[in-house]
Amino acid sequence: MIRYHNAQIMPMQNGTEIIRGELWTEGDSIVYVGETPAELPAFTRETDCRGHLLMPSFKNAHTHSAMTFLRSFAEDVPLQTWLFEKVFPYEDRLTPDDVYAFDRLAMLEYLAGGTTAVFDMYFFPEASAQAFIEAGMRLVFCGSIGGTAKDVERLNDQFQTCRSMHPRISYRLGFHAEYTSDESLHREVARLAQAEHEPVYTHISETKLEHDECIARHGASPAQYLDSVGIWEYGGGGFHAVWFDEKDRQLFADKGLWFVTCPCSNAKLASGIAPLRECIAQGVPLAVGTDGAASNNALDMFREMYLATVLQKLRTNDAAAIPAADMLTAATVGSARAMGLTDCDMLAAGKQADFILIDTDAANLLPGHHIPESLVLSGDRMNVEMTVCAGEILYDHGSYPTLNAEAVLADCAARIARLTG
Amino acid sequence: MIRYHNAQIMPMQNGTEIIRGELWTEGDSIVYVGETPAELPAFTRETDCRGHLLMPSFKNAHTHSAMTFLRSFAEDVPLQTWLFEKVFPYEDRLTPDDVYAFDRLAMLEYLAGGTTAVFDMYFFPEASAQAFIEAGMRLVFCGSIGGTAKDVERLNDQFQTCRSMHPRISYRLGFHAEYTSDESLHREVARLAQAEHEPVYTHISETKLEHDECIARHGASPAQYLDSVGIWEYGGGGFHAVWFDEKDRQLFADKGLWFVTCPCSNAKLASGIAPLRECIAQGVPLAVGTDGAASNNALDMFREMYLATVLQKLRTNDAAAIPAADMLTAATVGSARAMGLTDCDMLAAGKQADFILIDTDAANLLPGHHIPESLVLSGDRMNVEMTVCAGEILYDHGSYPTLNAEAVLADCAARIARLTG
Repeated sequence: MIRYHNAQIMPMQNGTEIIRGELWTEGDSIVYVGETPAELPAFTRETDCRGHLLMPSFKNAHTHSAMTFLRSFAEDVPLQTWLFEKVFPYEDRLTPDDVYAFDRLAMLEYLAGGTTAVFDMYFFPEASAQAFIEAGMRLVFCGSIGGTAKDVERLNDQFQTCRSMHPRISYRLGFHAEYTSDESLHREVARLAQAEHEPVYTHISETKLEHDECIARHGASPAQYLDSVGIWEYGGGGFHAVWFDEKDRQLFADKGLWFVTCPCSNAKLASGIAPLRECIAQGVPLAVGTDGAASNNALDMFREMYLATVLQKLRTNDAAAIPAADMLTAATVGSARAMGLTDCDMLAAGKQADFILIDTDAANLLPGHHIPESLVLSGDRMNVEMTVCAGEILYDHGSYPTLNAEAVLADCAARIARLTG
Repeated sequence: MIRYHNAQIMPMQNGTEIIRGELWTEGDSIVYVGETPAELPAFTRETDCRGHLLMPSFKNAHTHSAMTFLRSFAEDVPLQTWLFEKVFPYEDRLTPDDVYAFDRLAMLEYLAGGTTAVFDMYFFPEASAQAFIEAGMRLVFCGSIGGTAKDVERLNDQFQTCRSMHPRISYRLGFHAEYTSDESLHREVARLAQAEHEPVYTHISETKLEHDECIARHGASPAQYLDSVGIWEYGGGGFHAVWFDEKDRQLFADKGLWFVTCPCSNAKLASGIAPLRECIAQGVPLAVGTDGAASNNALDMFREMYLATVLQKLRTNDAAAIPAADMLTAATVGSARAMGLTDCDMLAAGKQADFILIDTDAANLLPGHHIPESLVLSGDRMNVEMTVCAGEILYDHGSYPTLNAEAVLADCAARIARLTG
């Protein structure tokens, strides 16, 4: 049993309430969270948290991890040029080994920023799974097929292969987007989801163009149309959802579908600002993702929380728009649940031991008048001291016990030279 | 003579061009920047930069440093409530010693983020000067009087006291804002500035309300009105300037007045998005500031550059809006010149040795396809390895040679308990 004591703890069971006390882990699980008891059991290791904050780790609910190789490769060019000239031709050259390598580059950033799990859409899920298993992180792979009904066979193959691959690896049904597939695919995905009792995820209403074209094509918004073919009988969600209208939001609220907001990507690509204040008012379940490093360009959940918050203030012309605590909850508890990681969402006995230690004595978080507000409005990755996933320390004051950072960087450099040189 | 070798160097003399080589300092100055010569002189100290990046430090061109004590004290409340109930009553209790202490808290954050100079508007400039002199940073104090003509006497007193106080401390004439002072003050400031051949700075057009009320009062925008009374015969600039129209921008371009943008503060307070793309097109000189920690809430020039860039993309609905390099230049060279620090703007022999070392091997900056874009779009304070001001190392891989961080934090905690408890 391992002990983390002398801590402030934000279990996120009770909003963002903070208690003083300690947390014990055994294997991959939390076995105790609370005040220091009068009698202590024997521990194999003890960490003095020096009064700093233990809280649930971040879960990144939308990403394309291996796109790290294209970060800042082509900036300030229009979206179509970027995609067709600067992304797709280079992605075509990728091998499974490349994806493994670039996932590892992404993990250096995830772990330093307190993220222990990602909801990833990319090529070669088995190569990704290997990278995440070795590093000790969690990976929830999301299907991203496009095309027609016949492509759903590939989705099902991946699903059957990866769904029970490893305790920290799972798979969710998904397809790329309404506009990159036809109705036969949507109906076939719905059929598979209903047969398997599984939720379904997709990019949705990211740009106004795509949203409007769906209305022209189907006489309904992407959310309404996909619901009409039965995609979401067992839940799921949508990534981006910038252009959701009131009816779309109500559908997501009524069905408990996850609205996965990606504010940095939507800003960088000038897609727009998602209606998060209205989502909160209508009771839409919120999660947060970074999208890939080519369209963000950081993999930083602090920045997502911050940007989501201030963009709502600008969009609604109201400095009081959306409390910081709502974004903190969305980026931790919300994202975990959106990905199906319901045992990694909060700090409590019986839950998985996925948490971070935050240096609340850092100058940018002081004074600690209101810690959730400080974390969202002035918090920074540099405040993450330790990242723990399934009970294992994966990041500790700048070092990575499960990843050889120098080897990762050297391997990636050689591959990037080959791919983009 | 001190040597920093094996570096990439972005001198910012030639846009954001990067060279390989080394930089030498002697006392407070740079004496050499360039390739490694065949014969080397003797050095008293040598730093191997391990291929990382030397670039000019950031200069924060608008701040209220000691407001650190009110960070996250009251969030998500309307602006007027915040100012009149949560800021002014607490500022009234401040002593010079408090300002000294809270400036030191701000400096821990400035230095860790690569900022070596600030353009500060607050109470008790002599207490601030003492804090900055001891820590080795630069302080350019900006007058912030309000009221009527008689208040200008106080401004002149401060100006005469502080203008030549110390090689790293200077003073610029300024007043709080058009809407917190009357025409007699504006005319008296103009007279003083013309007598002293000095530039003048002020908060300007931060909110739409304030901008429109000036038009109703004077029949002209704040910029046009202040120009008409002769404020800017010797240059100067304005902070925020969110609501500048084409004519205001042209005035600033024609007179070489500094447009000091504060995107994070303008976002948090829902003031709006400044028209930076139009400024660049019209040739307006750009600088960047954080504003105070109560309205930002970080003192982080990386975040300012990032937010300025992505907000232009959102505002103009154009993913190609404003190149990253323009914001990098504004936050370093531009801010330095806006503050009158023309000898701290770039890396060249004869300039002041104000620079930072950036870990370009950090995962969030890789791959280094385009370094200026990486710094702006995914850069982070955690990438700052070393901060040097006037030749002296003030931050070095987490440690502060001139500041006792623990003592600063303990001192501030006691004062904050007294002031806000």
